[in-house]
Amino acid sequence: MKKAIVLVSGGLDSATCLAIAQAEGYACYALSFDYGQRSVSELAAAARLTEAAGVAAHKTLPIDMGAIGGSALTDRSIAVPEQETQGIPVTYVPARNTVFLSYALAWAEVVAAEAIFIGVNALDYSGYPDCRPEYINAFQSLIDLATKAGVEGKSIALRTPLIDLTKAEIIGVGLQLGVDYAMTVSCYQADEDGRACGRCDSCRLRIKGFADAQSDDPTRYQ
Amino acid sequence: MKKAIVLVSGGLDSATCLAIAQAEGYACYALSFDYGQRSVSELAAAARLTEAAGVAAHKTLPIDMGAIGGSALTDRSIAVPEQETQGIPVTYVPARNTVFLSYALAWAEVVAAEAIFIGVNALDYSGYPDCRPEYINAFQSLIDLATKAGVEGKSIALRTPLIDLTKAEIIGVGLQLGVDYAMTVSCYQADEDGRACGRCDSCRLRIKGFADAQSDDPTRYQ
Repeated sequence: MKKAIVLVSGGLDSATCLAIAQAEGYACYALSFDYGQRSVSELAAAARLTEAAGVAAHKTLPIDMGAIGGSALTDRSIAVPEQETQGIPVTYVPARNTVFLSYALAWAEVVAAEAIFIGVNALDYSGYPDCRPEYINAFQSLIDLATKAGVEGKSIALRTPLIDLTKAEIIGVGLQLGVDYAMTVSCYQADEDGRACGRCDSCRLRIKGFADAQSDDPTRYQ
Repeated sequence: MKKAIVLVSGGLDSATCLAIAQAEGYACYALSFDYGQRSVSELAAAARLTEAAGVAAHKTLPIDMGAIGGSALTDRSIAVPEQETQGIPVTYVPARNTVFLSYALAWAEVVAAEAIFIGVNALDYSGYPDCRPEYINAFQSLIDLATKAGVEGKSIALRTPLIDLTKAEIIGVGLQLGVDYAMTVSCYQADEDGRACGRCDSCRLRIKGFADAQSDDPTRYQ
């Protein structure tokens, strides 16, 4: 059975991405990160989701992005904004996807996976530079040169099935594949029970997504 | 004063690289990783070296490459080879430089560094894919797309001053800059006091380097 590493944060996008990888017939090796994010209930959601999906393996790696600092998501002295802002937001975690994909690449080499799935999204991407298609293409070039597999002429495909979809389209695909969005947590400042604030960037995108998809929003709010 | 992140392992190459960055006038932010490598005395060497050099800051990040496995350097069930081998050696740590550079990039964004220095070397590179110039070029392209700085038109230069040098040439440059190589540890299986085995790949390259440089080898052997 072909294998894929799937980055699973516990949010709506990565839950959909996992369902897509499974529907394509991959044995999924799910990878989550405990990186000092405010919302620990995201990690509990990742554990529930991957168990329900019956993945081949699920690893949660502790990584110390907080030691490096610089983001509202890992530094409690910076407030999470509750209205739209211009440019790259303070919730941007420096080089986060680069760090995440590096570990995914390491695990892909060890289990001989043919693909890495990441649920980045260029339309609703909230202004993060490392969610853009040109960034993903650059990382694919890096993979081909960085690895033992690459040297031996085998490729590891970096897959981003959500990259061109709106949030409403992502929800539509996920519902067709049977994703239970009640299990997911998107909020940047969810409480311990996974209840969302309804006001941060991530909540606003999610609320709009369910409205645009004309679907009931199963999110539990504080 | 312009700032640079410098990856410092405690070995001969990174010690030379740090001296070069300082000679170019950078305030150096030294970054080491505790990644489950066999040789903990390497990290002690990194601490001594950076203190002696008077860096602006030194961070040692614990990262769990052992949880991912696949290398003789992080998995004690795989023996370190003591003679030359063909192809990519078992001491290769999957995606190691990609993980290291990702964290360096994150820290570079936070402190607004203009450069990242890494002491990779293509000639004596022991067969690791992520020490080749084409790999470094691909990572530079990634940096330009991955970062807030890149989006704002500022670049972070990935610098590899040792990439074309032989081990003997590296030693020559370092001695001119006053590097005390007695403080460095290169051996893959050094003992707790930093004494080298004299037999692993890394030791053999170092021994040949001092011989070719016609310089006394200050390494302490077991």
